[in-house]
Amino acid sequence: MRAVTFHAAGDVRVVDKAEPEVREADEALVKILASGICGSDLHIYHGRINIEEGFTIGHEYVAEVLAVGDAVRSVKVGDRVVGGFQTACGTCWLCHRGMFHKCDRSRTFGHGAVLGSLDGTQAEMAVVPFANLTLRPVPEGMSNDVALFAGDVMATGYHAATAVRPGDTVVVLGLGPVGLCAVQSAFVAGAAQVIAIDTVEDRLAMAKSFGATPVHLTEESPRDEVKRLTGGRGAQVVVEAVGNPAALDMALRLAAKCGTVNLIGVYAEKAEVHAGLLWIKSLTIEAGHANVLGHIDAVLSLLAAGKLDPGPLVTHHMHLDQAPEAYALYDRREALKIVLTP
Amino acid sequence: MRAVTFHAAGDVRVVDKAEPEVREADEALVKILASGICGSDLHIYHGRINIEEGFTIGHEYVAEVLAVGDAVRSVKVGDRVVGGFQTACGTCWLCHRGMFHKCDRSRTFGHGAVLGSLDGTQAEMAVVPFANLTLRPVPEGMSNDVALFAGDVMATGYHAATAVRPGDTVVVLGLGPVGLCAVQSAFVAGAAQVIAIDTVEDRLAMAKSFGATPVHLTEESPRDEVKRLTGGRGAQVVVEAVGNPAALDMALRLAAKCGTVNLIGVYAEKAEVHAGLLWIKSLTIEAGHANVLGHIDAVLSLLAAGKLDPGPLVTHHMHLDQAPEAYALYDRREALKIVLTP
Amino acid sequence: MRAVTFHAAGDVRVVDKAEPEVREADEALVKILASGICGSDLHIYHGRINIEEGFTIGHEYVAEVLAVGDAVRSVKVGDRVVGGFQTACGTCWLCHRGMFHKCDRSRTFGHGAVLGSLDGTQAEMAVVPFANLTLRPVPEGMSNDVALFAGDVMATGYHAATAVRPGDTVVVLGLGPVGLCAVQSAFVAGAAQVIAIDTVEDRLAMAKSFGATPVHLTEESPRDEVKRLTGGRGAQVVVEAVGNPAALDMALRLAAKCGTVNLIGVYAEKAEVHAGLLWIKSLTIEAGHANVLGHIDAVLSLLAAGKLDPGPLVTHHMHLDQAPEAYALYDRREALKIVLTP
Amino acid sequence: MRAVTFHAAGDVRVVDKAEPEVREADEALVKILASGICGSDLHIYHGRINIEEGFTIGHEYVAEVLAVGDAVRSVKVGDRVVGGFQTACGTCWLCHRGMFHKCDRSRTFGHGAVLGSLDGTQAEMAVVPFANLTLRPVPEGMSNDVALFAGDVMATGYHAATAVRPGDTVVVLGLGPVGLCAVQSAFVAGAAQVIAIDTVEDRLAMAKSFGATPVHLTEESPRDEVKRLTGGRGAQVVVEAVGNPAALDMALRLAAKCGTVNLIGVYAEKAEVHAGLLWIKSLTIEAGHANVLGHIDAVLSLLAAGKLDPGPLVTHHMHLDQAPEAYALYDRREALKIVLTP
Repeated sequence: MRAVTFHAAGDVRVVDKAEPEVREADEALVKILASGICGSDLHIYHGRINIEEGFTIGHEYVAEVLAVGDAVRSVKVGDRVVGGFQTACGTCWLCHRGMFHKCDRSRTFGHGAVLGSLDGTQAEMAVVPFANLTLRPVPEGMSNDVALFAGDVMATGYHAATAVRPGDTVVVLGLGPVGLCAVQSAFVAGAAQVIAIDTVEDRLAMAKSFGATPVHLTEESPRDEVKRLTGGRGAQVVVEAVGNPAALDMALRLAAKCGTVNLIGVYAEKAEVHAGLLWIKSLTIEAGHANVLGHIDAVLSLLAAGKLDPGPLVTHHMHLDQAPEAYALYDRREALKIVLTP
Repeated sequence: MRAVTFHAAGDVRVVDKAEPEVREADEALVKILASGICGSDLHIYHGRINIEEGFTIGHEYVAEVLAVGDAVRSVKVGDRVVGGFQTACGTCWLCHRGMFHKCDRSRTFGHGAVLGSLDGTQAEMAVVPFANLTLRPVPEGMSNDVALFAGDVMATGYHAATAVRPGDTVVVLGLGPVGLCAVQSAFVAGAAQVIAIDTVEDRLAMAKSFGATPVHLTEESPRDEVKRLTGGRGAQVVVEAVGNPAALDMALRLAAKCGTVNLIGVYAEKAEVHAGLLWIKSLTIEAGHANVLGHIDAVLSLLAAGKLDPGPLVTHHMHLDQAPEAYALYDRREALKIVLTP
Repeated sequence: MRAVTFHAAGDVRVVDKAEPEVREADEALVKILASGICGSDLHIYHGRINIEEGFTIGHEYVAEVLAVGDAVRSVKVGDRVVGGFQTACGTCWLCHRGMFHKCDRSRTFGHGAVLGSLDGTQAEMAVVPFANLTLRPVPEGMSNDVALFAGDVMATGYHAATAVRPGDTVVVLGLGPVGLCAVQSAFVAGAAQVIAIDTVEDRLAMAKSFGATPVHLTEESPRDEVKRLTGGRGAQVVVEAVGNPAALDMALRLAAKCGTVNLIGVYAEKAEVHAGLLWIKSLTIEAGHANVLGHIDAVLSLLAAGKLDPGPLVTHHMHLDQAPEAYALYDRREALKIVLTP
Repeated sequence: MRAVTFHAAGDVRVVDKAEPEVREADEALVKILASGICGSDLHIYHGRINIEEGFTIGHEYVAEVLAVGDAVRSVKVGDRVVGGFQTACGTCWLCHRGMFHKCDRSRTFGHGAVLGSLDGTQAEMAVVPFANLTLRPVPEGMSNDVALFAGDVMATGYHAATAVRPGDTVVVLGLGPVGLCAVQSAFVAGAAQVIAIDTVEDRLAMAKSFGATPVHLTEESPRDEVKRLTGGRGAQVVVEAVGNPAALDMALRLAAKCGTVNLIGVYAEKAEVHAGLLWIKSLTIEAGHANVLGHIDAVLSLLAAGKLDPGPLVTHHMHLDQAPEAYALYDRREALKIVLTP
């Protein structure tokens, strides 16, 4: 089968590989119908993640079930499914509590040995461990493009907005695909207003089309605008979808007293934090990547109802064999979401 | 001043009364700009509530502050305000916990001695006890018609939907003003779909215009429709906005396992309940009238943002002096919401 | 192997049966070390539950793992384990939300065809479906007697007390094993006081030894006592561990405004409920049997720490072959908990 | 009247001042029965807080009500009361949500102009603004020593433990009075075990007497001990009651995946935080001082029931006139809690 593999920074290829097969009772073998290129794939593309040469990459997918092990009961051969970018066993201590994203046995597709040696989904086929929990049937009538978001980007934006309560003002800092999905999710959770901050005009315009109030990061004053729009109170929830200390600092400043700052943007290092500000404002910080498998049912319901709609984020469709061009294009920030079809 | 008073079943009048004044340090005197006629006013009109002859009735109001006691700090003379139908002290054991609707010192406007002997708001002026908590400034630009709903009907619909989580299916049984506001509130709280049940075509049509899926109570089968629309699972939340045992029984049947049934419809007596069904489905029942003062800030934000919009419910505007005609018209079910203006 | 089987009301026997074996990839075969007789076994003994003649009964158990299917990862051969009285798949819609007690694929041990045809645990061996989720290792040093409670009675008392918040007054109505475990659980959840109500002196004395304030149901006035002990406010949480309409009615009366009534006692039929009281007090009712698999980790931690201690409830140890005498003794209410050892 | 006043670093005096009186309708005048010296008084004593020369200090108090304004209804003349170290209006946007600690109109006793120019309670008398919310009657039979803790230190320890769920392992870092109260509060909230870390043997011994597992910060390895005691999982909740970046760093390391770190220790500046660790473990940080008025009712109930008992923390009783010696003694860390009696 054809598969997209990593070789070196800037060097991804499409190669032939042996077809995978089900080896464990709780695995499924799936035929990929569509896969996406994600911001974290770009980290791999840039060589910032330590991954084996020739490893199959990709972790977003909609697929058709080809075969299942004896213990797979939640999906069956022929089902069209969407799955989490990460697997979860459903039976460990953290899974018992619904914290599937920190499952003791979790593996992530397409991230090499460091995250469980699980071959990626930018390929014609893939094996899905713990298929009972990792996969969900796609609701009838939903396009592959839309369903694809349930397994990663939209569920991540949704996760970032879980602290939102009806009537809140929400700030979203950073309008990449996750930030834009967080804008939609904040409204679904009842936000009265969402203030969307970025420097890219197109992204501000798209946030505005989703109902947000756009604020340009440098041409306007986010602090003044948030003050003005909240009667001086600040935002009850700030989603920090950038992932750097300057954004974190701004997030603490834009939050209302007793507010919540969600760090959905990736942090890997130390950062200087204004702990005094955090303390005097009695803020809560929630950190970490999304509990996709914890949110996926709700996200699928909301996508099916049209309450969440990532359609406008899909800017390109390309064939799997065009993956090298697709990565280059995405790297030049000329696309929001590229869908690859085998 | 002119005031609407109760005299006997079917007999309300508009009479002259002495102007009220502030007597306690935490009271405010207000000039009524608009008041509404509510379903519970109809209970009074029908003589089903024991109320003194000549007592001023009405409990929905938007007003302008004319005078305040020394301890009133939250509003000031000249403010346009909306207030709860019920007052709360903010400092008793239940108020500490935010359960303002069960305040130890609560009084309800326009319900006679049994609910605290507090003169009603269908009048030119009214005194508002505990003004710091009971009153809120109306956001600039919001019409009196819309603001009026924050102090009672919309906050009540909102209360009924507080158990809703994003992605849920919600059933609303009974599409009077509260039920219709619950439909809007359920969507604000993230409902993927709302199934709205009644027998009146106009109300079903209005629910549909709010995004709900209308189901006729008797011409269709609510159980079959809910099953069909939820893959057999039932509704995560059922709002019972009717207030009778048959509706409660249907609510228990339409709820999903582990679902919540909210009894916002008024119960005053004993009822036969299918406790076995309640038990085997592991349901939660929430009962009682709304915590309006607990929800009013969020409701005002959502009204200001247009996320909640009771505008279509206002079917009539009449002068305060026309109150007898207004009550008769409302009693004939020819109106959803009548706004009285002095 | 030897197994306790139901034949007719009052007729349970110990018979020889073929040894069971693992047939599914997610099953485990266990050797029973200890099993208990439960109040619900008595319903079977009385012939009130429709169960096949010769069906093996029992659903409480501590065991040793003898064999596991390919997909079992949470326990291994040789582990000492405790398991839920009910199985759960961990991967259906309700399991995703942690509502394991309403799992779409749930089966209950020892309750015949109506609850999934799963042979009981009052036997020398048993097969445990969905072993990954249903079984948990017993912490080192914990006795079988204590561990046994984690899979049913203590987890049920714990479930009944989940609404308790620190500082609350809690009433427990009915001091059978579940009620007594609810007393302990209420204190673990932070109850400032627990008022324990029953008619049996020994049970009142045991509740008192757990720190509760005992109140005799008929020789004292529960309403007066609860009033006196709560400054007239009532209890924030009332656990109804009896399961009849009179107890439910009393529960509604003893609850404080905005309180929660938990119906852990079994209901199977219709009941007249004072809906007006429920409504005017703004109560919440939670119904249904316990989410044992949702609580079992916490319960095991608390048992291991000695914060929960069901030891005093074990009044009898008998050999599995004595099961008929044990049932008769339990039926005469001469025992609180009988542990059977093969 | 006599009052303790600040003059310069290390210089507090007891002077004569005019007796205060009620000036606002919602104020109370109280006669101080007992006041405490708190860790934050030491910040003042060290000159680290900018406070006017001659300002009356102190913010812990049990008192008797001498007079009340017209709008005071929650307490009456003659009541023995305990009050929060901080006042709250009960009617602003944050008070509506129960976040009394961030009240828009809040003032703190004994902290000079920067926190509202409210004279302290280390005096014979004091005026209490917003008396309806700030004061609570002391339960009959409770000593002044015990009640004193409800208005500050115990409510603060309680606040730090609000994230604790039954069965959790909790780490408390720093065993000053707040840390020791957090140990007790964690058990009240259901902790299965509390691991208490400090360098002072006496404090470790006291924590042990409260049921905690003591770990010496430097002579033992907190990381190894927490690992050993939690099967490698870490603590579900870590209370950081020290207030410095090294403690915060250790807190992040001791927390379990998806755990909560509560920063009750005071932060005023920037701090380098291991954001990568925070992120990869999906931690939540809660910061800020305690919502004392939000917890005080529960704390009083638990103190009255003996479930919380700060008695052992009171190491010294001294006369108000001995305040200079008391401060010096406290500064030498020879006391845990000094109670001053006028």
